[in-house]
Amino acid sequence: MNILENRILKEGKIINGDVVKVDSFLNHQLDIKFLDKLAEIIKDYFKNKDINKILTIESSGIALATLVSQKFGGINVVFAKKKKTLNISNDIYSSKVSSFTTKKDYEVFVSKEYLNENDNILIIDDFLSEGNALKGLIDISNKANSKIYGISVAVEKGYLNGGKIIRDMGYDLLSLAIIKSIKDGRFTFYD
Amino acid sequence: MNILENRILKEGKIINGDVVKVDSFLNHQLDIKFLDKLAEIIKDYFKNKDINKILTIESSGIALATLVSQKFGGINVVFAKKKKTLNISNDIYSSKVSSFTTKKDYEVFVSKEYLNENDNILIIDDFLSEGNALKGLIDISNKANSKIYGISVAVEKGYLNGGKIIRDMGYDLLSLAIIKSIKDGRFTFYD
Repeated sequence: MNILENRILKEGKIINGDVVKVDSFLNHQLDIKFLDKLAEIIKDYFKNKDINKILTIESSGIALATLVSQKFGGINVVFAKKKKTLNISNDIYSSKVSSFTTKKDYEVFVSKEYLNENDNILIIDDFLSEGNALKGLIDISNKANSKIYGISVAVEKGYLNGGKIIRDMGYDLLSLAIIKSIKDGRFTFYD
Repeated sequence: MNILENRILKEGKIINGDVVKVDSFLNHQLDIKFLDKLAEIIKDYFKNKDINKILTIESSGIALATLVSQKFGGINVVFAKKKKTLNISNDIYSSKVSSFTTKKDYEVFVSKEYLNENDNILIIDDFLSEGNALKGLIDISNKANSKIYGISVAVEKGYLNGGKIIRDMGYDLLSLAIIKSIKDGRFTFYD
């Protein structure tokens, strides 16, 4: 059992049967010392790859992406945004995403200035459910002709098909904890 | 002229006369090595205060808050959220905020679990315009009986009244760059 699985067992909460809430350390309150340990594990796994940019998505991926960046010497992080604001130019790569949590569609986008064919990308996110957010980030990376060198998420819901979809696409996916089942309010994990 | 002012002069763009766009390093692409230097300046300014938690707001404050946390030994970061999702309980402190950028009202909230009377808070954000987001975070902190030990933003628009409002409320506000004016597409700064 690794440090993340332990932490989920200790603090993870289950809402409506399958919404996993780990907001005491991962996506509302951020335990920076703990996330830094996760970043170290991610760096160790991808250490032989010539990664020069991190791509994530607002908001919950940003802290982990920041810490992983430091392990790679402080490479730039780009976070995909979820809606248009006045601050963003029209010169964007975008992709439509269906949210597992909110059941709504939204658009994610990255300015063309910040993603291109010279980028060797590591994609980081907090959760992998049905893989929709990751598919959006992959789509954007492909549109930019960036090379995806790896993908890492903190928590994969192994009882949903997102992980299988991403692995079947051929990507090197590191999930730090893979939940096998949630039964009677208890978590079990895949090894 | 400090490092942030220099960077704004070099890369800052002006949209619609007064929207300052610094998304090459601060709020879309994140230059982690550079933000780490800003975090060091913030830590140095507040080093004698017994700060034990960082409060910020999604999304653009999270990376800087993460790096500032590390300078304080990895204290917890809490980021206020901007809308309710299934993942959030109803047990929240909330405050209404008017966005300077989008001209829309939205609600910010923090789960009651993650903010209380034992928290000595440093509030971090990327931008200070009319002070609405900061006022929301201050309101939430007060509702939680947390103590606000300081506030720091990267860029203050000195030609708007947000900085004056926050300082007049008695808070110790550190703005790393204060834009005095934007005229003919050029920035000037207050010392």
